[in-house]
Amino acid sequence: MISVEEAIDIVMSHTLEPGKEKIFLDKAIGRVLKEDILADRDFPPFNRVMMDGIAINSQAWEAGRREYYVESMQTAGSPQQTLSETQNCIEVMTGAMLPQNADVVIRYEDVNITGKVANVSVDAVTSFQNVHLKGTDRRVDDILIHKDQKLSPAEIAILATVGKHAVEVVRQLRIAIVSTGDELVDVNDTPSPYQIRRSNTYALQSALQVNGHESKGFHINDEKEVLGVKLREIVEEYDLVILSGGVSKGKKDYVPEILEKLNVRKLFHGVKQRPGKPFWFGVREDGSSSTTIFALPGNPVSTFMCFYTYTLPWLNRCYGIDNREIEASLSEDFEFNPPLTYFLQVKLNLDKGQLLAIPVIGKGSGDLANLLEADAFLQLPSGRSVFKAGESFPVISYRQKI
Amino acid sequence: MISVEEAIDIVMSHTLEPGKEKIFLDKAIGRVLKEDILADRDFPPFNRVMMDGIAINSQAWEAGRREYYVESMQTAGSPQQTLSETQNCIEVMTGAMLPQNADVVIRYEDVNITGKVANVSVDAVTSFQNVHLKGTDRRVDDILIHKDQKLSPAEIAILATVGKHAVEVVRQLRIAIVSTGDELVDVNDTPSPYQIRRSNTYALQSALQVNGHESKGFHINDEKEVLGVKLREIVEEYDLVILSGGVSKGKKDYVPEILEKLNVRKLFHGVKQRPGKPFWFGVREDGSSSTTIFALPGNPVSTFMCFYTYTLPWLNRCYGIDNREIEASLSEDFEFNPPLTYFLQVKLNLDKGQLLAIPVIGKGSGDLANLLEADAFLQLPSGRSVFKAGESFPVISYRQKI
Repeated sequence: MISVEEAIDIVMSHTLEPGKEKIFLDKAIGRVLKEDILADRDFPPFNRVMMDGIAINSQAWEAGRREYYVESMQTAGSPQQTLSETQNCIEVMTGAMLPQNADVVIRYEDVNITGKVANVSVDAVTSFQNVHLKGTDRRVDDILIHKDQKLSPAEIAILATVGKHAVEVVRQLRIAIVSTGDELVDVNDTPSPYQIRRSNTYALQSALQVNGHESKGFHINDEKEVLGVKLREIVEEYDLVILSGGVSKGKKDYVPEILEKLNVRKLFHGVKQRPGKPFWFGVREDGSSSTTIFALPGNPVSTFMCFYTYTLPWLNRCYGIDNREIEASLSEDFEFNPPLTYFLQVKLNLDKGQLLAIPVIGKGSGDLANLLEADAFLQLPSGRSVFKAGESFPVISYRQKI
Repeated sequence: MISVEEAIDIVMSHTLEPGKEKIFLDKAIGRVLKEDILADRDFPPFNRVMMDGIAINSQAWEAGRREYYVESMQTAGSPQQTLSETQNCIEVMTGAMLPQNADVVIRYEDVNITGKVANVSVDAVTSFQNVHLKGTDRRVDDILIHKDQKLSPAEIAILATVGKHAVEVVRQLRIAIVSTGDELVDVNDTPSPYQIRRSNTYALQSALQVNGHESKGFHINDEKEVLGVKLREIVEEYDLVILSGGVSKGKKDYVPEILEKLNVRKLFHGVKQRPGKPFWFGVREDGSSSTTIFALPGNPVSTFMCFYTYTLPWLNRCYGIDNREIEASLSEDFEFNPPLTYFLQVKLNLDKGQLLAIPVIGKGSGDLANLLEADAFLQLPSGRSVFKAGESFPVISYRQKI
């Protein structure tokens, strides 16, 4: 058995390069950019009026003029006008081009317009006040968004602005979720007294969906031959296969044996952690293509923890997304003695800028319902047994808290 | 003009009741439950074996027996067996029912099996060790998930377990996003020197999408008649209309006037805030149906800030989702003098459980590109001008940080 740190190292050094694809902007949210996005023009692209009001020439103001004849109106979205006489003014609207020969905008609140004459009631003006000068935010050809950026609404706005109606992003990996176990029936079925409904495929598929990944779900019973045939098909078709169940010491835990027969190279089996000790990880290389296999223990809390601790960070790394490493402070003293990394279920509470982790002890890795009470796993390192209130530890959250 | 606090109060006291709809489980992630979810059986539903090993009767153990004849095997997913002789054992697999007449599970690691005989090498056993007892997590008919819960992967797992292949959730509101402004051209168009491409509809639609809401985007030019006709159609068809632009003091800012003609009751126009001062909010009641209108200022930073500060919390409230009120600590002293609530753009940094807000000053509400640098708005209250490093203030984040 290896340590959690070793397991993470091995997983993270076996990522895939998914390649790229071009998609339309309205499908791009949450995807990862594979091209640098340049400014197609200056930002703003012209001297842009920032207030509704009048535009004047500051030389006229300095010469003492406070009353201006209104020559015309410059609205947003119309070609630039010219102030023909510097002692006149032009009414200007927010978003319009600043008229030629004008260099000051005075907002309506400081102007009194009667008929065609504007009287200004401020004591001072400064050159280019209320004008957003061309190119002050960004210059044409500046890199606005670097490739590998995950696209949030702010980036989508920029892509629209520079005219990127289609954009190159990381290709979606083909992902299969496979549960095994004879005791599992489908959500539509009525279980016999010795059966339960399967939940892991639903949990994992929805967890992937929240993170922008599509996947296909499968279930295979613990029959060696069927498992071999079906897993071969799946392993050959998908980039990533996440299995749950069949990796422990049970007489029907065929998964490791079958994967090795399918030429999946085992990278580890067993991690010094609770829950999730029997976690198996391997890679199948077949010429130019490769398939990565996370064979997770089948107990729901183990499956859940391993997915968020290993599989999701692996996916992020493949897509070039930074894994957020966050910590939370333990709210109370906690003791855990076995020489294992303990993933303590906790509720997260963000109060006055402080992230607190409150232990929510369940009844072990089979206690699915305890996931409802908690928000995250607090990763308590092995090699010590007492963890004090106020100490910070890495936290793996499965609910969005900020 | 009203204060930010008054504006939030008014917005939040004019929510809608969207009603409910039934959807399939595989579409339910992120939706809000409208029924309580009960345990259909005990959790676990039977005395469940937690380790691969052998099941014995503790009376035989106490009588001194350490060598057990293996009668049979109880796998997961098969009907309960019975230990016919209490001095024998049954091999048991994780997830199986505990055989009748057995009350202790000893894991394989502590057993040596030769042929049909198991020798036990532990010094002590306790009653029901390695057995997850029926009903210890939850009891049949316990409420597992209360209605109004937003469904995360943990809840999806529970819904699958209790057989909810379809579930009642809050109906999706019909949402329209409408940009106005003659200076705006589409993302596919090449703007003239005095035009820019529209970005607000793309930003808002993707921000809604991230939060699980579908919407339809529209653009209308600043022509009074067209605006009147098109807005009437939209207001009559949608539950929520988010406008951007046309609400300030400009000569072509027709939106407030037209909305009032369409019998939209103005609840406020103008908020003592920067950015976003000209924000307009109203409701149109038409018999049993009603439409809520957020007419946001058109400058991209204003639109963005108002959406996250007012519209998204309003949507959450309509759907029965708690609005997370979080605070962050200012990383450095900051000064702002006008008697307005200032929504300072900040980068968020979570370090050792502490959420820090680092100011990222842009060039005003037209500086769209600054949204790329920041993560959130820190809400600095009006009525004071000096804000000290280390002080905590409410923060409105538009990127997921935990």
